[in-house]
Amino acid sequence: MTNFTHFNDDGRAKMVDISNKSETARKAIARSSVQMNRIVYENITQQKIKKGDVLSVAQVAGVMAAKQTSSFIPMCHPIPISGVDLSFEWVYTEKDMYELLIDAEVKTVGNTGVEMEALTAASATALTVYDMCKAVDKGMVIGQTYLLEKSGGKSGDYKR
Amino acid sequence: MTNFTHFNDDGRAKMVDISNKSETARKAIARSSVQMNRIVYENITQQKIKKGDVLSVAQVAGVMAAKQTSSFIPMCHPIPISGVDLSFEWVYTEKDMYELLIDAEVKTVGNTGVEMEALTAASATALTVYDMCKAVDKGMVIGQTYLLEKSGGKSGDYKR
Amino acid sequence: MTNFTHFNDDGRAKMVDISNKSETARKAIARSSVQMNRIVYENITQQKIKKGDVLSVAQVAGVMAAKQTSSFIPMCHPIPISGVDLSFEWVYTEKDMYELLIDAEVKTVGNTGVEMEALTAASATALTVYDMCKAVDKGMVIGQTYLLEKSGGKSGDYKR
Amino acid sequence: MTNFTHFNDDGRAKMVDISNKSETARKAIARSSVQMNRIVYENITQQKIKKGDVLSVAQVAGVMAAKQTSSFIPMCHPIPISGVDLSFEWVYTEKDMYELLIDAEVKTVGNTGVEMEALTAASATALTVYDMCKAVDKGMVIGQTYLLEKSGGKSGDYKR
Amino acid sequence: MTNFTHFNDDGRAKMVDISNKSETARKAIARSSVQMNRIVYENITQQKIKKGDVLSVAQVAGVMAAKQTSSFIPMCHPIPISGVDLSFEWVYTEKDMYELLIDAEVKTVGNTGVEMEALTAASATALTVYDMCKAVDKGMVIGQTYLLEKSGGKSGDYKR
Amino acid sequence: MTNFTHFNDDGRAKMVDISNKSETARKAIARSSVQMNRIVYENITQQKIKKGDVLSVAQVAGVMAAKQTSSFIPMCHPIPISGVDLSFEWVYTEKDMYELLIDAEVKTVGNTGVEMEALTAASATALTVYDMCKAVDKGMVIGQTYLLEKSGGKSGDYKR
Repeated sequence: MTNFTHFNDDGRAKMVDISNKSETARKAIARSSVQMNRIVYENITQQKIKKGDVLSVAQVAGVMAAKQTSSFIPMCHPIPISGVDLSFEWVYTEKDMYELLIDAEVKTVGNTGVEMEALTAASATALTVYDMCKAVDKGMVIGQTYLLEKSGGKSGDYKR
Repeated sequence: MTNFTHFNDDGRAKMVDISNKSETARKAIARSSVQMNRIVYENITQQKIKKGDVLSVAQVAGVMAAKQTSSFIPMCHPIPISGVDLSFEWVYTEKDMYELLIDAEVKTVGNTGVEMEALTAASATALTVYDMCKAVDKGMVIGQTYLLEKSGGKSGDYKR
Repeated sequence: MTNFTHFNDDGRAKMVDISNKSETARKAIARSSVQMNRIVYENITQQKIKKGDVLSVAQVAGVMAAKQTSSFIPMCHPIPISGVDLSFEWVYTEKDMYELLIDAEVKTVGNTGVEMEALTAASATALTVYDMCKAVDKGMVIGQTYLLEKSGGKSGDYKR
Repeated sequence: MTNFTHFNDDGRAKMVDISNKSETARKAIARSSVQMNRIVYENITQQKIKKGDVLSVAQVAGVMAAKQTSSFIPMCHPIPISGVDLSFEWVYTEKDMYELLIDAEVKTVGNTGVEMEALTAASATALTVYDMCKAVDKGMVIGQTYLLEKSGGKSGDYKR
Repeated sequence: MTNFTHFNDDGRAKMVDISNKSETARKAIARSSVQMNRIVYENITQQKIKKGDVLSVAQVAGVMAAKQTSSFIPMCHPIPISGVDLSFEWVYTEKDMYELLIDAEVKTVGNTGVEMEALTAASATALTVYDMCKAVDKGMVIGQTYLLEKSGGKSGDYKR
Repeated sequence: MTNFTHFNDDGRAKMVDISNKSETARKAIARSSVQMNRIVYENITQQKIKKGDVLSVAQVAGVMAAKQTSSFIPMCHPIPISGVDLSFEWVYTEKDMYELLIDAEVKTVGNTGVEMEALTAASATALTVYDMCKAVDKGMVIGQTYLLEKSGGKSGDYKR
């Protein structure tokens, strides 16, 4: 059975040693989403025509969260992120329900991947959308959150 | 239409003024999950018999994330959290797939709710499980994340 | 001569004891600004018609900085801020120069004032405007930063 | 046997619920120290006559660390600290060895004690002295770190 | 017109990708100041003969703020700073008014500049001087804050 | 006399410039401990057979603290840590007293050492053990904390 790498010989968690891994350009894209009813959807999209909007706050949250990842995820290495970009897409699902797709792309040149940074950025963006709209409806749901793709590093590329 | 409270007269985001809200005991419970195959499942559950395990690291991450919520979610008020408790439950779903349910309960005595703290704690716990198991399978999915219930405060109780 | 309160009997800095100060509603408003040429000004104001803009990022920075104040200013007490609001105003100064006025209002119910939180929020907002426009002109200047007014607390109200 | 309070029914760590504990004035004093040879001792004490010195940097570190305690100690509650004061005392021990005693006093009005804040402040102060002098001697030792006294709260006063 | 680099194709803010920029030695010097009356000036300068003083606390604040820059300025890259140095100079201005000039020099070897780190360090230093003296006079003003010079990197050197 | 490197020409503290130091693989191991009576000892060791235990929480604290070192120790450089491993060993001392030895090993590939990261990790681990057991006995003592060994870098290897 494949063994976990995050544990030492005593069976205790450790931060895996990556001293010998080489520095390469790496990228990861993660997706999350927020599912909401028509009222919340219209509040968000109509707000857009004003100067500030829910999505621009949420996306700043995502960028800043990517930088905080290693203080958030215990065994995650601190990584000098070289770029973060968040994009949004609206999907009409069914029965007056809408889904806001959130894609977070993170890049680095380093000796470990940025999957966790991308996943954390996507999660923080989704949580912020929830926070700013929860006065209207607490029943919103943050959809599945997962890795879409990664590239760079010894373990090879991954595409969902 | 219900208006968003997070925007000022210029249409820009603000941190809502809660100076006049009264201090009451408040509680929120949020749920997230991690969906994984049998190999990851067995790695986690067999690890349990050792001194350290994935879930105990993930749960520390959840408690610490609850305390970091306001530095993570831009318009979220800093709140002196009075208690955090995380619990796990395994569900066998289908076709050799397992789901780890994560419930995060957060309490405070304060003048605003702790929904975001509970959601953030649940998300961080799920992300940490992913981080510690991703060497085995990058295809794990963090399931839907949502508020199960809240109590306390003027807006009344909520139960999903 | 009025003595500094931030030093102990050994002449060393301390965080002043406020255990005996009573909790009251407090407010502070601070001002900063960014002085820029017409090219930067037009870049910012034309960007406004798009979905994201410089000012909405800068203003999220200001809100988040207000919450970080006590980890930024060594002798500053951690305060549960109850509200933050930032507003902008454009002033045409002279010779094709423009000044963006930034007013940061911070509120709390607590036993010490929020002057530092307001000043820090205004500074972070100005610094973020600089950051986002410095590719166009590094010669921008952050204008004077000062307290406009404060209310609440034993030391009485202040108005510039 | 006295049971630990930091674990839930599943045997997992939690942040203990203090919602029902009453707010009282609380104080804790902790001690740490740094043991060093004559050369380091003279470097520190002669530096004092200049404008900046090792001890004033170390003491700022202690005050700031007290405020960071809950992001450092996983199950520690975030507490609005109302005062921090650090004091130093030199002791000549033996054989050209000197010990710098560091006492950290922390105060709050809250529903849990500040023992951890005082211990963390004392530790950070000692670590900073080490950091600033390690170019001269890496063999310095941070002495025992312990609680000297605490007062306030249901569990009663403690004095070593 | 020169375009902003901080926005993606949707017009939303992003953290600019610097993966392809080469690592070079970089330096930036920024200036801020605090303008104060004779009473505050004398309090600060007389304090200097004691062991701790306002300026040594403020300068520690500046060094620590430089390291926090990327958690303060949303689109700013996390950078491994290799050195920070703050210097002070007193200027007698007019009518019993004094100005404390604050110069912050930051260095790195990296793939983006440290202008924001230098500006943030200078600002934090000025804000800390204000904090420690505000009990004497809330009317102090933080003077203009700007980049004095930078070197290293593709965009070339800059000197005010 | 060996001069301190942490001060500039004005005698004020600075973060030492390490721009010209070369990147090499570096390692440091630091030790701390917690001294406790039999009751605390039995509580900890019997807890181990449950899913969560004191030591696994403490060790997560140590790993996370290593990453926070530069925001804790003022003049410490931010370093991209490449690995952290904590190990425990029980020692029976005398008169029903037990000592938990804590060794923290930290690695990096960088241009300055990780002694402070190892010392901070060991201290945070010890403080967390104290925190989780203090309800049973506030009289526990954190034992001496010191550098066991370091390797890499121009200043050569060190072994206690």
